[in-house]
Amino acid sequence: MAASLSHIPTFFSPTTNPSSTNRIRTLFYFKPSITQPHKSFAILCSRRPDYIPHHISDPNYVRIFDTTLRDGEQSPGATMTTKEKLDIARQLAKLGVDIIEAGFPASSEADLEAVKLIAKEVGNVSADENGHVPVICGLARCNKNDIDKSWEAVKHAKFPRIHTFIATSEIHMQYKLKMSKEQVIEKARSMVAYARSLGCNDVEFSPEDAGRSEREFLYEILGEVIKAGATTLNIPDTVGYNWPREFGQLIADIKANTPGIENVIISTHCQNDLGLSTANTLEGAYSGARQLEVTINGIGERAGNASLEEVVMTLKCKGELLGGLYTGINTRHIVMASKMVEEYSGLMVQPHKAIVGANAFAHESGIHQDGMLKNRNTYEIMSPEDIGLYRSNESGLTLGKLSGRHALKSKLFELGYDIDGKELNDLFWRFKSVAEMKKVITDDDLVALVSDEVFQPQIVWKFGDVQVTCGTLGLSTATVKLIDSEGKEHIACSTGTGPVDAAYKAVDLIVKTPVKLLEYSMSAVTAGIDAIASTRVVINEENNQTTQLTGGKNARSYSGTGASMDIVISSVRAYVGALNKMLGLKMQSK
Amino acid sequence: MAASLSHIPTFFSPTTNPSSTNRIRTLFYFKPSITQPHKSFAILCSRRPDYIPHHISDPNYVRIFDTTLRDGEQSPGATMTTKEKLDIARQLAKLGVDIIEAGFPASSEADLEAVKLIAKEVGNVSADENGHVPVICGLARCNKNDIDKSWEAVKHAKFPRIHTFIATSEIHMQYKLKMSKEQVIEKARSMVAYARSLGCNDVEFSPEDAGRSEREFLYEILGEVIKAGATTLNIPDTVGYNWPREFGQLIADIKANTPGIENVIISTHCQNDLGLSTANTLEGAYSGARQLEVTINGIGERAGNASLEEVVMTLKCKGELLGGLYTGINTRHIVMASKMVEEYSGLMVQPHKAIVGANAFAHESGIHQDGMLKNRNTYEIMSPEDIGLYRSNESGLTLGKLSGRHALKSKLFELGYDIDGKELNDLFWRFKSVAEMKKVITDDDLVALVSDEVFQPQIVWKFGDVQVTCGTLGLSTATVKLIDSEGKEHIACSTGTGPVDAAYKAVDLIVKTPVKLLEYSMSAVTAGIDAIASTRVVINEENNQTTQLTGGKNARSYSGTGASMDIVISSVRAYVGALNKMLGLKMQSK
Repeated sequence: MAASLSHIPTFFSPTTNPSSTNRIRTLFYFKPSITQPHKSFAILCSRRPDYIPHHISDPNYVRIFDTTLRDGEQSPGATMTTKEKLDIARQLAKLGVDIIEAGFPASSEADLEAVKLIAKEVGNVSADENGHVPVICGLARCNKNDIDKSWEAVKHAKFPRIHTFIATSEIHMQYKLKMSKEQVIEKARSMVAYARSLGCNDVEFSPEDAGRSEREFLYEILGEVIKAGATTLNIPDTVGYNWPREFGQLIADIKANTPGIENVIISTHCQNDLGLSTANTLEGAYSGARQLEVTINGIGERAGNASLEEVVMTLKCKGELLGGLYTGINTRHIVMASKMVEEYSGLMVQPHKAIVGANAFAHESGIHQDGMLKNRNTYEIMSPEDIGLYRSNESGLTLGKLSGRHALKSKLFELGYDIDGKELNDLFWRFKSVAEMKKVITDDDLVALVSDEVFQPQIVWKFGDVQVTCGTLGLSTATVKLIDSEGKEHIACSTGTGPVDAAYKAVDLIVKTPVKLLEYSMSAVTAGIDAIASTRVVINEENNQTTQLTGGKNARSYSGTGASMDIVISSVRAYVGALNKMLGLKMQSK
Repeated sequence: MAASLSHIPTFFSPTTNPSSTNRIRTLFYFKPSITQPHKSFAILCSRRPDYIPHHISDPNYVRIFDTTLRDGEQSPGATMTTKEKLDIARQLAKLGVDIIEAGFPASSEADLEAVKLIAKEVGNVSADENGHVPVICGLARCNKNDIDKSWEAVKHAKFPRIHTFIATSEIHMQYKLKMSKEQVIEKARSMVAYARSLGCNDVEFSPEDAGRSEREFLYEILGEVIKAGATTLNIPDTVGYNWPREFGQLIADIKANTPGIENVIISTHCQNDLGLSTANTLEGAYSGARQLEVTINGIGERAGNASLEEVVMTLKCKGELLGGLYTGINTRHIVMASKMVEEYSGLMVQPHKAIVGANAFAHESGIHQDGMLKNRNTYEIMSPEDIGLYRSNESGLTLGKLSGRHALKSKLFELGYDIDGKELNDLFWRFKSVAEMKKVITDDDLVALVSDEVFQPQIVWKFGDVQVTCGTLGLSTATVKLIDSEGKEHIACSTGTGPVDAAYKAVDLIVKTPVKLLEYSMSAVTAGIDAIASTRVVINEENNQTTQLTGGKNARSYSGTGASMDIVISSVRAYVGALNKMLGLKMQSK
C-alpha cells in the first residue's frame, strides 16, 4: 500500500458556509499588509469559484497549474515511478492545486498508465475539507495519436483536460518543425477541434516558444484555436528569455489583440534560465493571466520553472498590490510537498532557496539577530508555520528508545504521514535500532527513515547484509548479501578503490545487470557525529535507449535513496533501491 | 603560497584602443537580439568609465558591487579564512567587479585583517588586461568605532570606500534601535560627515529596510546624508519583501524626490526571500540605479541576495531592452567564481540554479533534444562558453597515468589554475595515485584534487592514515594516524555507530578540542562507480561565542572539504581540514 500523507491539522479551522455543498467551497487567504506583514493576518473567507474550463466567476481568482509531474520529471535523473507520481499527485491535491499536469501519455506506456491511475485515484476524490477535486491534465503534441493517448489517460477524471502544443517561433518552425506558418495554424486548429470532438470540453493550447514568436502571428493562431474550441491559452517563455516588463507586455498584448480572448483563460509558463521565472509569472498575472504554470521547488528542464512556493507566497503576501489577486492554495502543505519532490526527483534544494531552503528561516535557529529577539517582524516577512514548517523542539511528542508503536504512529501523523500495518511495523523496528544508538531521535531522523523504509519502489532485490574493510593501508574489500524475490540469499565479495566501489561491485556480481552510476551524494540529516546519513544515487542502464519527449532518444535514469547511521550501509541501500526502481519499471513496461 | 587562478584565455581578444592608457579601459558586451540571441553576438567595444565616486560619465554604465565576502559570508556555515577571502577577492577582480565589499572590519580582528590584506593585495593591482583596479569597501554601522575600523582596513587600497548603514523603517527604529526619526537622521548625517573627515572621499550610505520605510522620511534622510558628503546611496530591500514594480517605483520615487540626488549614485541591494531579487535589481537599474549589489551564486542571509551571474547575464542578453545598460564584467570568469564560492562557503548550488546550476545547460550532455540537434538556438539563449563553461571532452589535453608534471601543470592552467612548486608536486603525487586506479581522469577529478590539496587552510594537524572495518555484522572500528606541526605521529582508535563516526571519534581523541558536527555531505565529482568522492563538513567549537554583525552572539562555524576515491578517507580529510581552519583562526585571533 502506498504511504499517503495525511492532513496536517490547519491552524485556522475552516469557516464553513452553512449552505455550502460539495461544489461551494470555502477557503482562506491572508489579507496582506505592507508595514506589518504577518502580524495582521486578518483572515478573509473567499470561495474558490466553481470550475468552468473557459471562465472564472471571480476576476481576482488565479488558478495554479502544477507541472511537477510533467515538466519537472523531464529534468535529468528525475524519473519517477508510478507510485511516486501518485504520492505527489495526492499531495498536490491536498495543497489545493487547481490543475495537475500528470504526464505526457504518448511518451511511454508507463507514463500513460501513471496518468490514468492519477486520473482515477486523485481526479475523483476530494483531498481537502472543502470538497475540492483537481483537474487532471495530460500533455500531447499536435497529432491524433498523442491526443488519443492523452484522452485515454485523463478521461477517467471528474475534470479531465488535454493540453496540446506546437512551436510558433520562426526558429522553431524553420529548424525543428520544418513547417510554414499556414501549416502550423492548420495543425493547431484541427488538433484542438479533434480533442474537442473526443468529448473533452477542457482543452489547453500552448504556442511553444511564444516569448520569441512574432506578435501578429501569435494573435492569429490563438484566435484560430479559440474558434476551434480551446478553453485555456498558455503562453510559454520556453527558453526563459523574457524579462518581467517584456513578458507582462506580451500577455497584455495578447489580451488586447487576440479575437475571442475574453472567452478563454490566459496562462503563463515561465522557464528560469535568467532567474526571472517567478517575477515573469507574477507580471503575467498582473497583466491578465489567470492560470499560472509552476512546479514544486521550481524543478524542470535546464534551470527549471517558476516555483509554486515563490509564486503562491508572493501572491499571499503581496496580492493586494497585484490588484487583489489570490489563489486557492493551502500553503501549510508546501513544506511537505517540497520535501517529497526533493526526495523523489533527486533534485536537491539549495540552502538559500527562497521559501523552502534550509536557511530561508535560518536566523531563527542560527544567527540570533539582535532585532529578531526584540521583534520577529524586523527580519521576517512570513512565519515558518505559514508554509507548514514546524521545528522539532516545538512539537509536542518526543520519542526515545522506550517509545512504542502507538507513540511512533502519533508522531508520524503529527509530521504528516499516515502509516499503518506492515509499513508501520517495519519502520518501528528500524526506529528501535536507531534509538538504541542515538540519544535524541529528531523529526528529521524519522523523516529519513520513512523515506528509506516506506518510499521505496517495489522490491526486486532485498538488502541483507554488508561488511567492509577499507582505509589508506589496505585494499578495500566488501561482502554483500542480497535476497531475491523468492527469498533466496545471494552472497558475493569484491575489492574496489574504496568501500562503496567494492560494495557496489559485489552487488553487481549478484544482480548481473550492467548499470552506470551517474550521481552519488550523501548528507547527514541532522547535526551531530552520530547522525543518520541519507544517500542518494542515480543510475542508468548501459546501452538502453528510450524515446523522450520531443522525439529524441535518451537513456532514462533512476534514483534511489537509503538511510543508515553507517554510510556504507546507506550507500548500498540507495544503490539497491535505484536498481529496484529500474528493474521494476522494466517489468512493468513488458 | 596561495593558489591564484590564472586568466582563462578569452575567446575574443580585446580590441585595444591605440590611445588607451592604464586608465582608459576597453571592454565588451554582446549586442542582444531577440530572435537569435547568441548567433548575433556582435561585439561592441565600450570603455569602462574612469572611476569617480559620485558620478559615472556614461549614463548607461552600471557598476557591479559584489558583497559575497560580507553579506554572503554571513550565511550559516559560510565562515571563510583570510586566505579563502583573498582568493575570492582576486577572482572578483578578474571578473571585473567594480566594487568589492570585503568585510565588516569592526565585527572581529580577523575580519579587519582580511579586509586590510585585500585592500593591499587586490586593491592596488590590475587583475585584467585593461588595467582595471576594483574599489575595496568595508561595512560600518553608524558609529565612530565602526567607521574608524573600516577606514583603517580599506585606506590601503587605491580606491577605498566606507559603507555605513542605519535602519529607517518604523519597526526597526522602534524595536531595534529605540531611536526617534530625528535621532536617526542626526546619527546618519554626522557619521557620514565623520567618514569624510577621515579623508575618505567615497562614502556609501544605506537606509536599512528601505523597502518598508516611509517615503517622505527616506527622501529627508537621504537628502541630509548627501549634504554630509555621501557619494552612493544604497536602497536595500532588507527583508526581500518588495515585488519588482514596487521596488522599481521606490527607486524612481527616490530619484525624483530626494534633494541633491543628481549628484550621487543610486544603488540596489535586494534580498531573495520571495525569489524576486534578480528581477527587483533589474527593475532598480531600469528606474535609475547605477550600482547593483549582488553575490556570487546569490548566497547571503536567509534566502540570499540577487546573484551576480543572473543580473549580469540578463543585462548582457537584454541590456538593449533596459535602455542600453551594460556592465564591465568579463562573464567568462563566472563559472570559476561560482565554483570557488561554492567550495569556500559550503553553500551548494542546486542543479536547476539559473546560469551556474549543473543542469543549466544540461540538454547538451543529457537530453539531446531533437531541436537542439538541428539548431542550438532552438533551446539555448546563451552558450556555455559565454560564462566560461568548457566541457571535459572539448578540452585538448587528456591525462592518464603516464602523464608527467608538465602535462598536469598545462592541464591545470587550461582549467584556470596557475599552480607551481611544492603545491604542484604534492598535487602530482595525488594525481598519480588516482591515475593508477582510474582509467579516465576528467577535469572534474582534477578540480576536486586541487580543492582538496591546494585550497586547504594552514595545516595544524596533517592527515596520516585511516583504517576501518564496518557493516551490518559487526561493530564499526577505526584507527587514525595524524601528524602534528612538529612532525610527531599520533595514533588513536575508536568504535562508533558507523565508519565515519568511529573515525571522527578517533580524531577527537588525538586533537582534544570539543567540536560539534553541524553538517556532513558528500558527492561524487564524476559519474562512474570509481569516481572521486568529495566530502564537506561544517563544525563549530562547543561553548565558544563570537560577536556577530548586529550585536547578537553566535558561535562561528567552519567548513572543510576532502577528496578521495574512498569515502571514509575523504570524510576524515574534510574533518581534519575543518579542524585546521578552526584552530588556525583561533591562533590568528590570539
